[in-house]
Amino acid sequence: MFVTTKEIEVRYAETDQMGVVYHANYFIWMELGRTSFIEGLGYNYAEMEKDGIISPVIDIQATYKKPVRYGEKAIVKTWVEEYDGFRVTYGYEILTQTGEIAVIGNSKHVCVKKDSFRPISIKRMFPEWHAAYENAKKQNNAENV
Amino acid sequence: MFVTTKEIEVRYAETDQMGVVYHANYFIWMELGRTSFIEGLGYNYAEMEKDGIISPVIDIQATYKKPVRYGEKAIVKTWVEEYDGFRVTYGYEILTQTGEIAVIGNSKHVCVKKDSFRPISIKRMFPEWHAAYENAKKQNNAENV
Amino acid sequence: MFVTTKEIEVRYAETDQMGVVYHANYFIWMELGRTSFIEGLGYNYAEMEKDGIISPVIDIQATYKKPVRYGEKAIVKTWVEEYDGFRVTYGYEILTQTGEIAVIGNSKHVCVKKDSFRPISIKRMFPEWHAAYENAKKQNNAENV
Amino acid sequence: MFVTTKEIEVRYAETDQMGVVYHANYFIWMELGRTSFIEGLGYNYAEMEKDGIISPVIDIQATYKKPVRYGEKAIVKTWVEEYDGFRVTYGYEILTQTGEIAVIGNSKHVCVKKDSFRPISIKRMFPEWHAAYENAKKQNNAENV
Repeated sequence: MFVTTKEIEVRYAETDQMGVVYHANYFIWMELGRTSFIEGLGYNYAEMEKDGIISPVIDIQATYKKPVRYGEKAIVKTWVEEYDGFRVTYGYEILTQTGEIAVIGNSKHVCVKKDSFRPISIKRMFPEWHAAYENAKKQNNAENV
Repeated sequence: MFVTTKEIEVRYAETDQMGVVYHANYFIWMELGRTSFIEGLGYNYAEMEKDGIISPVIDIQATYKKPVRYGEKAIVKTWVEEYDGFRVTYGYEILTQTGEIAVIGNSKHVCVKKDSFRPISIKRMFPEWHAAYENAKKQNNAENV
Repeated sequence: MFVTTKEIEVRYAETDQMGVVYHANYFIWMELGRTSFIEGLGYNYAEMEKDGIISPVIDIQATYKKPVRYGEKAIVKTWVEEYDGFRVTYGYEILTQTGEIAVIGNSKHVCVKKDSFRPISIKRMFPEWHAAYENAKKQNNAENV
Repeated sequence: MFVTTKEIEVRYAETDQMGVVYHANYFIWMELGRTSFIEGLGYNYAEMEKDGIISPVIDIQATYKKPVRYGEKAIVKTWVEEYDGFRVTYGYEILTQTGEIAVIGNSKHVCVKKDSFRPISIKRMFPEWHAAYENAKKQNNAENV
Protein backbone atom coordinates (compact mmCIF):
# COMPACT_ATOMS: atom_id res chain seq x y z
CA MET A 1 0.00 0.00 0.00
CA PHE A 2 1.34 3.42 -0.95
CA VAL A 3 1.12 5.59 2.18
CA THR A 4 3.02 8.81 2.82
CA THR A 5 4.02 10.12 6.22
CA LYS A 6 4.20 13.81 7.08
CA GLU A 7 5.47 15.18 10.38
CA ILE A 8 3.63 18.15 11.87
CA GLU A 9 4.93 20.46 14.58
CA VAL A 10 1.91 21.63 16.59
CA ARG A 11 1.53 25.42 16.50
CA TYR A 12 0.40 27.46 19.48
CA ALA A 13 -2.06 29.19 17.14
CA GLU A 14 -3.68 25.80 16.49
CA THR A 15 -4.73 25.27 20.09
CA ASP A 16 -7.94 26.56 21.64
CA GLN A 17 -8.98 27.19 25.22
CA MET A 18 -9.55 23.45 25.79
CA GLY A 19 -5.74 23.32 25.79
CA VAL A 20 -5.64 21.04 22.74
CA VAL A 21 -5.62 21.43 18.95
CA TYR A 22 -8.90 22.97 17.71
CA HIS A 23 -10.84 20.29 15.84
CA ALA A 24 -11.06 22.09 12.48
CA ASN A 25 -7.28 22.51 12.33
CA TYR A 26 -6.77 18.80 11.76
CA PHE A 27 -8.30 19.34 8.31
CA ILE A 28 -5.38 21.66 7.55
CA TRP A 29 -3.02 18.89 8.56
CA MET A 30 -4.88 16.54 6.21
CA GLU A 31 -4.21 19.11 3.47
CA LEU A 32 -0.49 18.89 4.32
CA GLY A 33 -0.73 15.11 4.19
CA ARG A 34 -2.39 15.34 0.76
CA THR A 35 0.27 17.71 -0.59
CA SER A 36 2.95 15.36 0.63
CA PHE A 37 1.14 12.33 -0.86
CA ILE A 38 0.93 14.03 -4.27
CA GLU A 39 4.63 14.85 -4.06
CA GLY A 40 5.23 11.21 -3.18
CA LEU A 41 3.53 10.29 -6.49
CA GLY A 42 5.92 12.67 -8.26
CA TYR A 43 3.43 15.51 -8.86
CA ASN A 44 2.92 18.99 -7.52
CA TYR A 45 -0.46 20.46 -6.68
CA ALA A 46 0.77 24.08 -6.87
CA GLU A 47 1.91 23.48 -10.46
CA MET A 48 -1.48 22.06 -11.41
CA GLU A 49 -3.19 25.22 -10.19
CA LYS A 50 -0.99 27.27 -12.49
CA ASP A 51 -2.73 25.42 -15.37
CA GLY A 52 -6.04 26.87 -14.14
CA ILE A 53 -7.26 23.65 -12.50
CA ILE A 54 -8.15 23.49 -8.81
CA SER A 55 -9.23 20.54 -6.72
CA PRO A 56 -11.90 21.51 -4.19
CA VAL A 57 -13.07 19.20 -1.42
CA ILE A 58 -16.60 17.86 -1.94
CA ASP A 59 -16.86 15.71 1.20
CA ILE A 60 -14.74 15.58 4.32
CA GLN A 61 -14.98 13.71 7.59
CA ALA A 62 -13.02 13.26 10.82
CA THR A 63 -13.33 11.09 13.91
CA TYR A 64 -11.44 12.27 16.97
CA LYS A 65 -9.84 9.69 19.27
CA LYS A 66 -7.22 11.56 21.29
CA PRO A 67 -6.33 15.23 21.59
CA VAL A 68 -2.99 16.52 20.34
CA ARG A 69 -1.24 19.26 22.31
CA TYR A 70 1.18 22.12 21.75
CA GLY A 71 4.77 21.06 22.22
CA GLU A 72 4.11 17.70 20.57
CA LYS A 73 4.77 16.45 17.08
CA ALA A 74 2.12 14.59 15.09
CA ILE A 75 2.28 12.34 12.04
CA VAL A 76 -0.22 12.40 9.15
CA LYS A 77 -0.47 9.20 7.13
CA THR A 78 -2.19 9.62 3.75
CA TRP A 79 -3.30 7.17 1.08
CA VAL A 80 -5.84 6.84 -1.75
CA GLU A 81 -9.05 5.12 -0.71
CA GLU A 82 -11.00 5.43 -3.95
CA TYR A 83 -10.41 6.82 -7.43
CA ASP A 84 -12.59 6.66 -10.56
CA GLY A 85 -10.92 9.02 -13.04
CA PHE A 86 -12.95 12.00 -11.79
CA ARG A 87 -13.06 11.83 -8.02
CA VAL A 88 -10.34 10.85 -5.60
CA THR A 89 -10.90 9.98 -1.94
CA TYR A 90 -7.91 10.23 0.38
CA GLY A 91 -7.75 8.43 3.71
CA TYR A 92 -5.86 9.88 6.68
CA GLU A 93 -4.60 8.74 10.04
CA ILE A 94 -3.15 11.32 12.38
CA LEU A 95 -0.91 9.83 15.05
CA THR A 96 0.43 11.34 18.26
CA GLN A 97 4.19 11.30 18.76
CA THR A 98 3.84 8.11 20.78
CA GLY A 99 2.09 6.42 17.85
CA GLU A 100 -1.47 6.48 19.15
CA ILE A 101 -4.30 7.30 16.74
CA ALA A 102 -5.49 10.86 17.36
CA VAL A 103 -7.76 11.38 14.34
CA ILE A 104 -8.95 9.35 11.39
CA GLY A 105 -10.58 10.91 8.38
CA ASN A 106 -11.07 11.07 4.66
CA SER A 107 -11.79 13.64 1.99
CA LYS A 108 -13.23 13.41 -1.52
CA HIS A 109 -12.07 15.80 -4.25
CA VAL A 110 -12.85 16.65 -7.86
CA CYS A 111 -10.82 18.71 -10.29
CA VAL A 112 -12.53 21.78 -11.72
CA LYS A 113 -11.62 24.75 -13.90
CA LYS A 114 -10.73 27.67 -11.66
CA ASP A 115 -12.79 30.23 -13.56
CA SER A 116 -16.01 28.21 -13.94
CA PHE A 117 -15.84 25.51 -11.20
CA ARG A 118 -16.75 23.03 -14.02
CA PRO A 119 -15.48 19.49 -13.34
CA ILE A 120 -12.83 18.04 -15.61
CA SER A 121 -11.71 14.45 -16.17
CA ILE A 122 -8.39 13.79 -14.46
CA LYS A 123 -8.02 10.75 -16.69
CA ARG A 124 -8.24 12.83 -19.88
CA MET A 125 -6.55 16.06 -18.74
CA PHE A 126 -3.71 14.61 -16.65
CA PRO A 127 -3.21 11.04 -18.00
CA GLU A 128 0.09 10.47 -16.17
CA TRP A 129 -1.33 11.65 -12.90
CA HIS A 130 -4.30 9.36 -13.57
CA ALA A 131 -1.95 6.43 -14.04
CA ALA A 132 -0.20 7.23 -10.76
CA TYR A 133 -3.54 7.27 -8.88
CA GLU A 134 -4.62 4.04 -10.54
CA ASN A 135 -1.36 2.51 -9.48
CA ALA A 136 -1.65 3.74 -5.89
CA LYS A 137 -5.16 2.33 -5.75
CA LYS A 138 -4.08 -1.01 -7.22
CA GLN A 139 -1.48 -1.42 -4.48
CA ASN A 140 -4.24 -1.11 -1.87
CA ASN A 141 -6.40 -3.71 -3.58
CA ALA A 142 -3.54 -6.16 -3.97
CA GLU A 143 -3.02 -6.08 -0.24
CA ASN A 144 -6.70 -6.52 0.55
CA VAL A 145 -6.81 -9.84 -1.32
CA MET B 1 -38.69 21.28 14.53
CA PHE B 2 -36.48 23.56 16.60
CA VAL B 3 -33.94 25.11 14.21
CA THR B 4 -31.88 28.23 14.82
CA THR B 5 -30.59 30.57 12.14
CA LYS B 6 -27.30 32.45 12.38
CA GLU B 7 -26.11 35.01 9.86
CA ILE B 8 -22.42 35.00 8.96
CA GLU B 9 -20.52 37.80 7.26
CA VAL B 10 -17.78 36.19 5.15
CA ARG B 11 -14.32 37.35 6.23
CA TYR B 12 -11.50 38.00 3.77
CA ALA B 13 -9.28 35.89 6.03
CA GLU B 14 -11.63 32.94 5.44
CA THR B 15 -10.99 32.80 1.69
CA ASP B 16 -8.13 30.95 0.05
CA GLN B 17 -6.50 31.28 -3.34
CA MET B 18 -9.40 29.45 -5.00
CA GLY B 19 -11.24 32.73 -4.39
CA VAL B 20 -13.82 31.06 -2.12
CA VAL B 21 -14.14 30.18 1.58
CA TYR B 22 -11.52 27.59 2.61
CA HIS B 23 -13.32 24.31 3.29
CA ALA B 24 -12.21 23.91 6.93
CA ASN B 25 -13.58 27.34 7.84
CA TYR B 26 -17.16 26.14 7.44
CA PHE B 27 -16.59 24.07 10.59
CA ILE B 28 -16.00 27.32 12.45
CA TRP B 29 -19.33 28.57 11.13
CA MET B 30 -20.96 25.36 12.39
CA GLU B 31 -19.47 26.21 15.80
CA LEU B 32 -21.20 29.60 15.59
CA GLY B 33 -24.42 27.85 14.62
CA ARG B 34 -24.07 25.55 17.64
CA THR B 35 -23.42 28.44 20.02
CA SER B 36 -26.48 30.17 18.68
CA PHE B 37 -28.58 26.97 18.95
CA ILE B 38 -27.58 26.52 22.59
CA GLU B 39 -28.51 30.14 23.29
CA GLY B 40 -31.79 29.44 21.53
CA LEU B 41 -32.41 26.70 24.12
CA GLY B 42 -31.73 29.23 26.86
CA TYR B 43 -28.24 28.02 27.78
CA ASN B 44 -24.73 29.35 27.39
CA TYR B 45 -21.75 27.22 26.41
CA ALA B 46 -19.18 29.68 27.82
CA GLU B 47 -20.87 29.43 31.24
CA MET B 48 -20.73 25.64 31.16
CA GLU B 49 -16.97 25.75 30.59
CA LYS B 50 -16.59 27.86 33.73
CA ASP B 51 -17.90 24.80 35.62
CA GLY B 52 -14.92 22.81 34.31
CA ILE B 53 -16.89 20.94 31.64
CA ILE B 54 -15.98 21.11 27.95
CA SER B 55 -17.71 19.58 24.98
CA PRO B 56 -15.22 18.32 22.38
CA VAL B 57 -16.22 17.13 18.92
CA ILE B 58 -15.88 13.38 18.44
CA ASP B 59 -17.12 13.16 14.84
CA ILE B 60 -17.64 15.82 12.19
CA GLN B 61 -18.60 15.77 8.55
CA ALA B 62 -19.32 18.20 5.73
CA THR B 63 -20.54 17.93 2.14
CA TYR B 64 -19.84 20.91 -0.09
CA LYS B 65 -22.42 21.90 -2.70
CA LYS B 66 -21.62 25.48 -3.65
CA PRO B 67 -18.76 27.82 -2.77
CA VAL B 68 -19.38 30.92 -0.65
CA ARG B 69 -17.43 34.08 -1.45
CA TYR B 70 -16.11 37.16 0.29
CA GLY B 71 -18.60 40.02 0.17
CA GLU B 72 -21.53 37.63 0.69
CA LYS B 73 -23.54 36.76 3.76
CA ALA B 74 -24.30 33.15 4.66
CA ILE B 75 -26.86 31.55 6.95
CA VAL B 76 -26.17 28.60 9.27
CA LYS B 77 -29.21 26.54 10.26
CA THR B 78 -28.64 24.26 13.27
CA TRP B 79 -30.74 21.57 14.92
CA VAL B 80 -30.36 18.44 17.07
CA GLU B 81 -30.25 15.23 15.06
CA GLU B 82 -29.66 12.76 17.87
CA TYR B 83 -29.31 12.87 21.63
CA ASP B 84 -29.00 10.02 24.17
CA GLY B 85 -28.12 11.73 27.45
CA PHE B 86 -24.38 11.51 26.76
CA ARG B 87 -23.82 12.39 23.13
CA VAL B 88 -25.49 15.04 21.04
CA THR B 89 -25.36 15.22 17.24
CA TYR B 90 -26.09 18.57 15.65
CA GLY B 91 -27.18 18.93 12.02
CA TYR B 92 -26.24 21.97 9.94
CA GLU B 93 -27.23 23.54 6.67
CA ILE B 94 -25.22 26.50 5.41
CA LEU B 95 -27.09 28.60 2.87
CA THR B 96 -25.82 31.25 0.47
CA GLN B 97 -27.46 34.64 0.65
CA THR B 98 -29.75 33.64 -2.22
CA GLY B 99 -30.94 30.64 -0.21
CA GLU B 100 -29.06 27.91 -2.03
CA ILE B 101 -27.47 25.11 -0.02
CA ALA B 102 -23.70 25.64 0.18
CA VAL B 103 -22.74 23.03 2.78
CA ILE B 104 -24.50 20.36 4.80
CA GLY B 105 -22.92 18.72 7.79
CA ASN B 106 -23.19 17.34 11.27
CA SER B 107 -21.07 16.99 14.38
CA LYS B 108 -21.23 14.68 17.39
CA HIS B 109 -20.15 15.87 20.83
CA VAL B 110 -19.68 14.54 24.33
CA CYS B 111 -19.21 16.46 27.56
CA VAL B 112 -16.00 15.80 29.48
CA LYS B 113 -14.21 17.18 32.51
CA LYS B 114 -11.66 19.72 31.36
CA ASP B 115 -8.82 18.41 33.50
CA SER B 116 -9.19 14.68 32.75
CA PHE B 117 -11.15 14.54 29.44
CA ARG B 118 -13.40 11.97 31.25
CA PRO B 119 -16.96 11.84 29.84
CA ILE B 120 -19.82 12.96 32.05
CA SER B 121 -23.55 12.34 31.78
CA ILE B 122 -25.33 15.46 30.55
CA LYS B 123 -28.55 13.95 31.89
CA ARG B 124 -27.20 13.71 35.43
CA MET B 125 -24.94 16.79 35.54
CA PHE B 126 -27.13 19.27 33.65
CA PRO B 127 -30.71 17.93 34.03
CA GLU B 128 -32.39 21.08 32.72
CA TRP B 129 -30.14 21.22 29.70
CA HIS B 130 -30.90 17.52 29.19
CA ALA B 131 -34.63 18.27 29.23
CA ALA B 132 -34.14 21.03 26.66
CA TYR B 133 -32.28 18.65 24.31
CA GLU B 134 -34.92 15.96 24.79
CA ASN B 135 -37.53 18.48 23.93
CA ALA B 136 -35.70 19.72 20.83
CA LYS B 137 -35.32 16.12 19.68
CA LYS B 138 -38.98 15.33 20.34
CA GLN B 139 -40.04 18.18 18.10
CA ASN B 140 -38.06 16.63 15.24
CA ASN B 141 -39.67 13.22 15.78
CA ALA B 142 -43.15 14.64 15.97
CA GLU B 143 -42.68 16.16 12.56
CA ASN B 144 -41.28 12.99 11.05
CA VAL B 145 -44.45 11.04 11.91
CA MET C 1 -14.26 62.54 13.41
CA PHE C 2 -15.67 59.79 11.19
CA VAL C 3 -15.36 56.53 13.17
CA THR C 4 -17.25 53.32 12.54
CA THR C 5 -18.14 50.75 15.15
CA LYS C 6 -18.31 47.01 14.48
CA GLU C 7 -19.47 44.43 17.00
CA ILE C 8 -17.58 41.13 17.10
CA GLU C 9 -18.79 37.90 18.69
CA VAL C 10 -15.73 36.05 19.96
CA ARG C 11 -15.39 32.62 18.34
CA TYR C 12 -14.15 29.56 20.19
CA ALA C 13 -11.78 28.94 17.28
CA GLU C 14 -10.19 32.32 17.99
CA THR C 15 -8.99 31.37 21.46
CA ASP C 16 -5.74 29.59 22.23
CA GLN C 17 -4.57 27.59 25.22
CA MET C 18 -3.94 30.79 27.20
CA GLY C 19 -7.76 30.86 27.41
CA VAL C 20 -7.95 34.19 25.53
CA VAL C 21 -8.12 35.33 21.91
CA TYR C 22 -4.90 34.46 20.03
CA HIS C 23 -3.01 37.69 19.33
CA ALA C 24 -2.92 37.39 15.52
CA ASN C 25 -6.71 37.03 15.36
CA TYR C 26 -7.21 40.67 16.35
CA PHE C 27 -5.82 41.56 12.92
CA ILE C 28 -8.77 39.72 11.39
CA TRP C 29 -11.10 41.83 13.53
CA MET C 30 -9.30 44.94 12.25
CA GLU C 31 -10.07 43.68 8.74
CA LEU C 32 -13.76 43.50 9.73
CA GLY C 33 -13.50 47.03 11.13
CA ARG C 34 -11.97 48.21 7.83
CA THR C 35 -14.69 46.55 5.76
CA SER C 36 -17.30 48.20 7.91
CA PHE C 37 -15.53 51.59 7.69
CA ILE C 38 -15.45 51.40 3.87
CA GLU C 39 -19.16 50.54 3.87
CA GLY C 40 -19.69 53.51 6.17
CA LEU C 41 -18.12 55.68 3.44
CA GLY C 42 -20.60 54.20 0.97
CA TYR C 43 -18.16 51.88 -0.81
CA ASN C 44 -17.61 48.16 -1.01
CA TYR C 45 -14.22 46.49 -0.96
CA ALA C 46 -15.48 43.26 -2.54
CA GLU C 47 -16.75 45.25 -5.54
CA MET C 48 -13.39 46.96 -5.98
CA GLU C 49 -11.66 43.58 -6.19
CA LYS C 50 -13.97 42.61 -9.05
CA ASP C 51 -12.31 45.46 -11.00
CA GLY C 52 -8.97 43.67 -10.59
CA ILE C 53 -7.68 45.95 -7.82
CA ILE C 54 -6.63 44.62 -4.41
CA SER C 55 -5.46 46.49 -1.35
CA PRO C 56 -2.69 44.61 0.47
CA VAL C 57 -1.40 45.63 3.89
CA ILE C 58 2.10 47.09 3.81
CA ASP C 59 2.48 47.82 7.53
CA ILE C 60 0.49 46.66 10.55
CA GLN C 61 0.88 47.06 14.28
CA ALA C 62 -0.96 46.16 17.46
CA THR C 63 -0.51 46.89 21.15
CA TYR C 64 -2.31 44.56 23.55
CA LYS C 65 -3.79 46.01 26.75
CA LYS C 66 -6.35 43.47 27.95
CA PRO C 67 -7.24 39.98 26.78
CA VAL C 68 -10.66 39.26 25.25
CA ARG C 69 -12.35 35.95 26.02
CA TYR C 70 -14.79 33.53 24.44
CA GLY C 71 -18.36 34.30 25.45
CA GLU C 72 -17.74 38.05 25.27
CA LYS C 73 -18.51 40.60 22.59
CA ALA C 74 -15.93 43.11 21.43
CA ILE C 75 -16.18 46.39 19.53
CA VAL C 76 -13.81 47.50 16.77
CA LYS C 77 -13.60 51.25 16.19
CA THR C 78 -12.02 52.25 12.87
CA TRP C 79 -10.99 55.59 11.37
CA VAL C 80 -8.57 57.01 8.81
CA GLU C 81 -5.30 58.22 10.33
CA GLU C 82 -3.48 59.25 7.17
CA TYR C 83 -4.20 59.36 3.45
CA ASP C 84 -2.14 60.79 0.58
CA GLY C 85 -3.91 59.61 -2.57
CA PHE C 86 -1.89 56.38 -2.70
CA ARG C 87 -1.63 55.03 0.81
CA VAL C 88 -4.24 54.92 3.52
CA THR C 89 -3.53 54.27 7.20
CA TYR C 90 -6.44 53.08 9.32
CA GLY C 91 -6.46 53.40 13.10
CA TYR C 92 -8.24 50.86 15.31
CA GLU C 93 -9.36 50.55 18.88
CA ILE C 94 -10.75 47.22 20.06
CA LEU C 95 -12.88 47.50 23.17
CA THR C 96 -14.09 44.83 25.56
CA GLN C 97 -17.81 44.63 26.17
CA THR C 98 -17.39 46.74 29.29
CA GLY C 99 -15.75 49.49 27.21
CA GLU C 100 -12.14 48.94 28.25
CA ILE C 101 -9.41 49.17 25.61
CA ALA C 102 -8.21 45.68 24.70
CA VAL C 103 -6.06 46.41 21.64
CA ILE C 104 -4.98 49.49 19.72
CA GLY C 105 -3.46 49.28 16.27
CA ASN C 106 -3.12 50.63 12.80
CA SER C 107 -2.53 49.33 9.29
CA LYS C 108 -1.22 50.97 6.12
CA HIS C 109 -2.50 49.89 2.70
CA VAL C 110 -1.87 50.57 -0.95
CA CYS C 111 -3.99 49.63 -3.94
CA VAL C 112 -2.36 47.40 -6.54
CA LYS C 113 -3.38 45.56 -9.70
CA LYS C 114 -4.19 41.98 -8.80
CA ASP C 115 -2.21 40.43 -11.65
CA SER C 116 1.01 42.45 -11.30
CA PHE C 117 0.96 43.81 -7.70
CA ARG C 118 1.77 47.23 -9.31
CA PRO C 119 0.53 50.19 -7.21
CA ILE C 120 -2.18 52.41 -8.61
CA SER C 121 -3.29 55.90 -7.65
CA ILE C 122 -6.53 55.79 -5.69
CA LYS C 123 -6.97 59.47 -6.49
CA ARG C 124 -6.90 58.85 -10.26
CA MET C 125 -8.56 55.42 -10.45
CA PHE C 126 -11.31 55.88 -7.85
CA PRO C 127 -11.84 59.68 -7.63
CA GLU C 128 -15.06 59.45 -5.62
CA TRP C 129 -13.51 57.06 -3.13
CA HIS C 130 -10.56 59.45 -2.94
CA ALA C 131 -12.91 62.31 -2.11
CA ALA C 132 -14.53 60.23 0.63
CA TYR C 133 -11.13 59.48 2.21
CA GLU C 134 -10.10 63.12 1.96
CA ASN C 135 -13.29 64.06 3.66
CA ALA C 136 -12.89 61.48 6.45
CA LYS C 137 -9.34 62.76 7.03
CA LYS C 138 -10.49 66.40 7.05
CA GLN C 139 -12.98 65.64 9.80
CA ASN C 140 -10.13 64.31 11.97
CA ASN C 141 -8.01 67.41 11.38
CA ALA C 142 -10.88 69.77 12.10
CA GLU C 143 -11.28 68.17 15.50
CA ASN C 144 -7.58 68.32 16.27
CA VAL C 145 -7.52 72.11 15.86
CA MET D 1 24.77 37.53 16.65
CA PHE D 2 22.62 34.60 17.75
CA VAL D 3 19.98 34.11 15.05
CA THR D 4 17.92 30.99 14.43
CA THR D 5 16.53 29.91 11.10
CA LYS D 6 13.24 28.09 10.66
CA GLU D 7 11.93 26.74 7.38
CA ILE D 8 8.21 27.08 6.70
CA GLU D 9 6.21 25.17 4.08
CA VAL D 10 3.42 27.47 2.91
CA ARG D 11 -0.02 25.95 3.55
CA TYR D 12 -2.94 26.32 1.17
CA ALA D 13 -5.06 27.33 4.16
CA GLU D 14 -2.71 30.27 4.71
CA THR D 15 -3.48 31.90 1.35
CA ASP D 16 -6.37 34.25 0.70
CA GLN D 17 -8.14 35.29 -2.47
CA MET D 18 -5.29 37.66 -3.37
CA GLY D 19 -3.47 34.42 -4.18
CA VAL D 20 -0.79 35.06 -1.54
CA VAL D 21 -0.34 34.36 2.18
CA TYR D 22 -2.89 36.32 4.27
CA HIS D 23 -1.04 39.05 6.13
CA ALA D 24 -2.00 37.96 9.67
CA ASN D 25 -0.63 34.46 9.08
CA TYR D 26 2.95 35.74 9.05
CA PHE D 27 2.51 36.37 12.79
CA ILE D 28 1.98 32.64 13.20
CA TRP D 29 5.24 32.05 11.38
CA MET D 30 6.94 34.50 13.76
CA GLU D 31 5.59 32.35 16.59
CA LEU D 32 7.27 29.33 14.97
CA GLY D 33 10.48 31.37 14.67
CA ARG D 34 10.23 32.26 18.36
CA THR D 35 9.67 28.64 19.41
CA SER D 36 12.67 27.61 17.39
CA PHE D 37 14.78 30.46 18.83
CA ILE D 38 13.94 29.40 22.39
CA GLU D 39 14.85 25.81 21.52
CA GLY D 40 18.10 27.17 20.09
CA LEU D 41 18.82 28.67 23.53
CA GLY D 42 18.23 25.23 25.05
CA TYR D 43 14.76 25.95 26.51
CA ASN D 44 11.24 24.86 25.75
CA TYR D 45 8.25 27.18 25.82
CA ALA D 46 5.72 24.35 26.23
CA GLU D 47 7.53 23.21 29.39
CA MET D 48 7.40 26.71 30.85
CA GLU D 49 3.64 26.81 30.41
CA LYS D 50 3.35 23.62 32.46
CA ASP D 51 4.75 25.66 35.37
CA GLY D 52 1.74 27.99 35.06
CA ILE D 53 3.63 30.79 33.31
CA ILE D 54 2.57 32.11 29.89
CA SER D 55 4.20 34.72 27.72
CA PRO D 56 1.62 36.89 25.94
CA VAL D 57 2.50 39.38 23.21
CA ILE D 58 2.19 43.02 24.29
CA ASP D 59 3.29 44.66 21.04
CA ILE D 60 3.69 43.29 17.53
CA GLN D 61 4.51 44.81 14.19
CA ALA D 62 5.11 43.72 10.60
CA THR D 63 6.19 45.44 7.38
CA TYR D 64 5.38 43.59 4.17
CA LYS D 65 7.86 43.76 1.28
CA LYS D 66 7.01 40.85 -0.99
CA PRO D 67 4.17 38.33 -0.99
CA VAL D 68 4.83 34.65 -0.33
CA ARG D 69 2.83 32.06 -2.27
CA TYR D 70 1.56 28.51 -1.85
CA GLY D 71 4.03 25.99 -3.22
CA GLU D 72 6.99 27.97 -1.90
CA LYS D 73 9.11 27.56 1.21
CA ALA D 74 9.93 30.52 3.43
CA ILE D 75 12.60 31.09 6.08
CA VAL D 76 12.01 32.85 9.41
CA LYS D 77 15.08 34.36 11.03
CA THR D 78 14.66 35.23 14.72
CA TRP D 79 16.86 37.05 17.22
CA VAL D 80 16.55 39.04 20.48
CA GLU D 81 16.39 42.78 19.92
CA GLU D 82 15.91 43.92 23.51
CA TYR D 83 15.70 42.31 26.93
CA ASP D 84 15.51 43.87 30.40
CA GLY D 85 14.75 40.99 32.74
CA PHE D 86 10.98 41.45 32.33
CA ARG D 87 10.29 42.10 28.68
CA VAL D 88 11.85 40.52 25.64
CA THR D 89 11.60 41.89 22.11
CA TYR D 90 12.24 39.46 19.27
CA GLY D 91 13.19 40.61 15.78
CA TYR D 92 12.15 38.64 12.68
CA GLU D 93 13.00 38.54 9.02
CA ILE D 94 10.93 36.31 6.76
CA LEU D 95 12.69 35.43 3.51
CA THR D 96 11.32 33.95 0.31
CA GLN D 97 12.95 30.79 -0.96
CA THR D 98 15.13 32.88 -3.25
CA GLY D 99 16.42 34.83 -0.24
CA GLU D 100 14.48 38.05 -0.75
CA ILE D 101 12.99 39.79 2.27
CA ALA D 102 9.23 39.19 2.38
CA VAL D 103 8.36 40.51 5.84
CA ILE D 104 10.23 42.18 8.69
CA GLY D 105 8.78 42.46 12.15
CA ASN D 106 9.19 42.33 15.87
CA SER D 107 7.18 41.37 18.94
CA LYS D 108 7.47 42.29 22.61
CA HIS D 109 6.51 39.80 25.32
CA VAL D 110 6.19 39.60 29.08
CA CYS D 111 5.82 36.55 31.29
CA VAL D 112 2.69 36.38 33.42
CA LYS D 113 1.00 33.87 35.71
CA LYS D 114 -1.61 31.97 33.73
CA ASP D 115 -4.35 32.29 36.32
CA SER D 116 -3.99 36.01 37.12
CA PHE D 117 -2.15 37.49 34.10
CA ARG D 118 0.18 39.14 36.70
CA PRO D 119 3.70 39.83 35.32
CA ILE D 120 6.63 37.96 36.79
CA SER D 121 10.37 38.66 36.64
CA ILE D 122 12.08 36.31 34.19
CA LYS D 123 15.35 37.18 35.89
CA ARG D 124 14.12 35.98 39.29
CA MET D 125 11.84 33.09 38.24
CA PHE D 126 13.96 31.59 35.44
CA PRO D 127 17.55 32.69 36.19
CA GLU D 128 19.16 30.34 33.66
CA TRP D 129 16.80 31.41 30.92
CA HIS D 130 17.57 35.00 31.90
CA ALA D 131 21.29 34.34 31.51
CA ALA D 132 20.69 32.84 28.07
CA TYR D 133 18.75 35.95 26.95
CA GLU D 134 21.42 38.26 28.37
CA ASN D 135 24.00 36.29 26.48
CA ALA D 136 22.02 36.39 23.21
CA LYS D 137 21.63 40.14 23.62
CA LYS D 138 25.33 40.64 24.40
CA GLN D 139 26.28 38.92 21.16
CA ASN D 140 24.21 41.48 19.24
CA ASN D 141 25.85 44.40 21.01
CA ALA D 142 29.35 43.04 20.49
CA GLU D 143 28.71 42.99 16.76
CA ASN D 144 27.29 46.48 16.69
CA VAL D 145 30.51 47.95 18.12
